[in-house]
Amino acid sequence: MAIYLDHAATSPMRPEVVAAYTAALPLVGNPSSIHGQGQAAQELLEQGRDRVAASLGADGVEVVLTAGGTESVNLGIKGLFWARAPRRRILVPLAEHHATIDSVEWLAAREGAVLDWIEVDELGRIRLDALEAALAVGGDDVALVTALWANNEVGTIQPVAEIVAAAARYGVPVHLDAIAAYGQLPIDFHAVGAAALSVSAHKIGGPVGVGALLLARSASIEPLVHGGNQQRARSGTQDAAGASAFGVAAELATACLVEHAAHLAELRDRLVDGIRASVDGAVLRGDPDPAGRLPGNAHFTFAGCEGDSLLFLLDVAGFSVSTGSACQAGVPEASHVLLAMGVSEADARGALRFTLGPETTAAEVDALLAVLPGVVEQARGAGLAGRSPTLGRQ
Amino acid sequence: MAIYLDHAATSPMRPEVVAAYTAALPLVGNPSSIHGQGQAAQELLEQGRDRVAASLGADGVEVVLTAGGTESVNLGIKGLFWARAPRRRILVPLAEHHATIDSVEWLAAREGAVLDWIEVDELGRIRLDALEAALAVGGDDVALVTALWANNEVGTIQPVAEIVAAAARYGVPVHLDAIAAYGQLPIDFHAVGAAALSVSAHKIGGPVGVGALLLARSASIEPLVHGGNQQRARSGTQDAAGASAFGVAAELATACLVEHAAHLAELRDRLVDGIRASVDGAVLRGDPDPAGRLPGNAHFTFAGCEGDSLLFLLDVAGFSVSTGSACQAGVPEASHVLLAMGVSEADARGALRFTLGPETTAAEVDALLAVLPGVVEQARGAGLAGRSPTLGRQ
Repeated sequence: MAIYLDHAATSPMRPEVVAAYTAALPLVGNPSSIHGQGQAAQELLEQGRDRVAASLGADGVEVVLTAGGTESVNLGIKGLFWARAPRRRILVPLAEHHATIDSVEWLAAREGAVLDWIEVDELGRIRLDALEAALAVGGDDVALVTALWANNEVGTIQPVAEIVAAAARYGVPVHLDAIAAYGQLPIDFHAVGAAALSVSAHKIGGPVGVGALLLARSASIEPLVHGGNQQRARSGTQDAAGASAFGVAAELATACLVEHAAHLAELRDRLVDGIRASVDGAVLRGDPDPAGRLPGNAHFTFAGCEGDSLLFLLDVAGFSVSTGSACQAGVPEASHVLLAMGVSEADARGALRFTLGPETTAAEVDALLAVLPGVVEQARGAGLAGRSPTLGRQ
Repeated sequence: MAIYLDHAATSPMRPEVVAAYTAALPLVGNPSSIHGQGQAAQELLEQGRDRVAASLGADGVEVVLTAGGTESVNLGIKGLFWARAPRRRILVPLAEHHATIDSVEWLAAREGAVLDWIEVDELGRIRLDALEAALAVGGDDVALVTALWANNEVGTIQPVAEIVAAAARYGVPVHLDAIAAYGQLPIDFHAVGAAALSVSAHKIGGPVGVGALLLARSASIEPLVHGGNQQRARSGTQDAAGASAFGVAAELATACLVEHAAHLAELRDRLVDGIRASVDGAVLRGDPDPAGRLPGNAHFTFAGCEGDSLLFLLDVAGFSVSTGSACQAGVPEASHVLLAMGVSEADARGALRFTLGPETTAAEVDALLAVLPGVVEQARGAGLAGRSPTLGRQ
């Protein structure tokens, strides 16, 4: 069994969640059916919804259950954009997740959106002055601002309160992608004042294929999926078992948040310190201040390496990690997040993201630290042998 | 435990499906992750995808897994429409499911679509002459035809081969909503020649929140949900456990199709004959020819009754059934399907849909037949007491 250090990709379902899911699966009844069996399914569904809401400082009526984080982000961005027509401008930081980037680019290509890309600093944090300037220039034509709560690759926590406050001065709604932050940072939907906020269940020990878009009562939105109007902004038969399991995961994540974050931060710092001490050319990316980054995230670039080579070698050695960047059809691409932070393309190609979870132990971190220096050395050899055109041919 | 006769709303998960789902839930790994744990999840996912494909006469590469039937229909219709721009016309029968109606109406309201509503006959079957005429008039401006394989309310089987052939003569792609037909009729995606076809897992004993859009290799489509490009026409972390469970349900549904359909048809005919013999003013809606309707569907209107009254009384008596029509916030609405078939609004309000499943028994049907005449009489009394304005006030 491999040591799993890729919790940002997906996280193991907690036993309590599996138990809740398994208990709900044999029940039959569509929550929209009027008969008793349908109403029992609806009760289970609404209990799950209320638990998700409570874990995020929201009310059940503000929770639109979706098929996952990507759908939530699409619904939040496209739904707000459509509802705010004829306003055209979308303000979006350069280091967002692909769900956001691809959604806004589609809106630009097909629906007349105009994109104002907001710069991030060398830590991956949004430049508030650039956001302010874009709001001032965009004026009444700004449909929405969308931003990550914390960066999913490098873990940098964003100044969400300041983002929402700036947008509010111009009457502009904000969508926050809190998928990476959920379960690691306290999230209070009412306190932050965003119009919409996306989360996913499987990043906090819940089931895959379940997520939510939180939607303020005052927010106007157009649905992405139309049909029976089962929810305020989404149609389709509602998944009572999935909602129930999500609710249990949400409750656990919130109940244990402080201890969980402390546990993650301790192991993360052990990992960061260990890598810095043992691997030459390893550069921590994102905020070096432990309080400024997700407690479960350690992201490095290893000079002279291909991230993919590192990933493969670690996989063989029994560790599951990620490069944290897009990789399509085997062609490694430098992360747009790192490039937006000003990292060179060559350095960006040597990225590796370690993301820890509740079941991660100090022994697992130490096991990684024991093999990593050798793996990096081996990957650098592979690069010289031909994988890296820059190092290999010159 | 109530007797469940509402399988068209959702169906019980088969024990083999629960077992497959339960076995998959504790596995960890995002199918898009490159490491071994990710690849194991991908194997499970692709096995499920291939089984779904095989059950529908398609190849795995043609299967886009979705969050359910409603998303599939939205993707099929909107995705084909967008990809066929600047063509504007959508040809759509009047008796479609709300997922279709609401999707095309949204495209008309916001995306410039022009809707050609195609009439259905008194059995709920599309008028092929009207379709031909609309294709001839629409000419090069037709983006797509969309149609049910079998009507979800009254069970009428549609002439899908003729629909696809007619559209093909004009080079127009067809989306088929096979959600109600799946598991009850043989479906061969390659043979029928549609561009796209929607199915849902939970209607055939699979999990809620999982579905598929089959997409011909030659079809062009725009995604509805954008992000990591995990699938040809859909982004978002793929649900390996859900796909695995769907695959098992699909395999079972196909393996048992002939026996299953015969079992359903026998019980349906027993139910239809029994109601006709024992309840005055009960009119079977949809095709009275057993071969022309879904084997598991018996749909009646009961003159002088509110369908909702019947549903409530049957619920109390221990039977879960459906009115088969939209009912929002407790306000019963006459079914648009029945109205399109020429049923009067008064008659349409007395609709009740019984849908049978693999575990339904003759004893359950007989139990329903034993109480139904009394229930109808009671509902008519309720109508006279004030629920039905027509009967009560005049």
